Amino acid sequence: MKLYTYFRSSAAYRVRIALNLKGLAYESVPVHLLRNGGEQLGEAYRAVNPSALVPALEDDGAVLTQSMAIIEYLDEMHPTMPLLPQDALGRARVRALSLTVACDTHPLGNLRVLKHLKGHMGLSEEAKMDWYRHWMNEGMAALEAQLARDGATGRFCHGDTPTMADCFLVPQVFNAQRFEIGLAPYPTIAAIHEHCAQLPAFRQAHPSQQPDAE
Amino acid sequence: MKLYTYFRSSAAYRVRIALNLKGLAYESVPVHLLRNGGEQLGEAYRAVNPSALVPALEDDGAVLTQSMAIIEYLDEMHPTMPLLPQDALGRARVRALSLTVACDTHPLGNLRVLKHLKGHMGLSEEAKMDWYRHWMNEGMAALEAQLARDGATGRFCHGDTPTMADCFLVPQVFNAQRFEIGLAPYPTIAAIHEHCAQLPAFRQAHPSQQPDAE
Repeated sequence: MKLYTYFRSSAAYRVRIALNLKGLAYESVPVHLLRNGGEQLGEAYRAVNPSALVPALEDDGAVLTQSMAIIEYLDEMHPTMPLLPQDALGRARVRALSLTVACDTHPLGNLRVLKHLKGHMGLSEEAKMDWYRHWMNEGMAALEAQLARDGATGRFCHGDTPTMADCFLVPQVFNAQRFEIGLAPYPTIAAIHEHCAQLPAFRQAHPSQQPDAE
Repeated sequence: MKLYTYFRSSAAYRVRIALNLKGLAYESVPVHLLRNGGEQLGEAYRAVNPSALVPALEDDGAVLTQSMAIIEYLDEMHPTMPLLPQDALGRARVRALSLTVACDTHPLGNLRVLKHLKGHMGLSEEAKMDWYRHWMNEGMAALEAQLARDGATGRFCHGDTPTMADCFLVPQVFNAQRFEIGLAPYPTIAAIHEHCAQLPAFRQAHPSQQPDAE
């Protein structure tokens, strides 16, 4: 398998965690999101993924896009170390937690959005960061509320083994820390993040451990 | 089943289509997103869904959130009229198309974001609409590119029967039309939308057909 990735892309980071949790070997194909005006916007990468976003996964000639669709696919093709619970309600919960990051949090602070705020709309760095922190805090608060009120939360987002939801939580925390958003209001998220950070699958997927890390 | 819904919410609209395609009866519980400063933000609804977003589905005492997680759950619990293909690659494709709307398009034009742009950031109506159209067009172009280049696209997003991806496409087109974003650059999306509009399941899920329609 070939993963089109960028070390700091949080969507690519999610897929790297899932691949590692399942013990699947893959080749990293770095796509530099800042160099050359953004390599993801060039024709070569658009032929791989017309959405011009990372990650994309090439498996046996097929190209898959969207981190959540890729992780569900990996889980279906490689059922050992399942990333979704056995029961339908549990699966719905893990998907909802993942989507709270994927839909309600991450898209608003994505690189292309921050670039648009500054470049096209002429926002100051301060106003851009105000936007970023506002939406990241909204999203983290929603995730914390879901995790804190539910007995299904354990050492990880759902019970005591990692699931897809943890593949989404950890890169989101990485982003928060990078932009100095404190975790104090989010003790459940912080505790789960600690437990994840003890596992090699998560540590080896960290941006700093990637071949294209800067 | 009880669906917490708002007639114009495109995430609720997705779930209504899925319920109708499967022929599942449900009770609508309207949550008015504008009245009383936004009923979704009140304590009563936060007890249902701490994310303060519609929809939420109550089934047999359990509350499910996030439109995509709800649709996957309905598909698992009620397998007739499947909304996901039989093969893993097909499922990955339908999920990726759905996520192109759910993650890359809709979150940037969501009500709470538009309110923040105008209220908190003081943007003019014109600048707000410029933002809206920019991201909706980016998202629709990405969806069109994925659909147009792939032989798996048929009368619907994936083959000749509706799938989850069509539940996402149609509300997105409704939003585009509401804000006068032309479909001319998106002929594949427009054709699929036409085919969907012929089916009662889609027509009956339309905002104008809801008990809380204004």
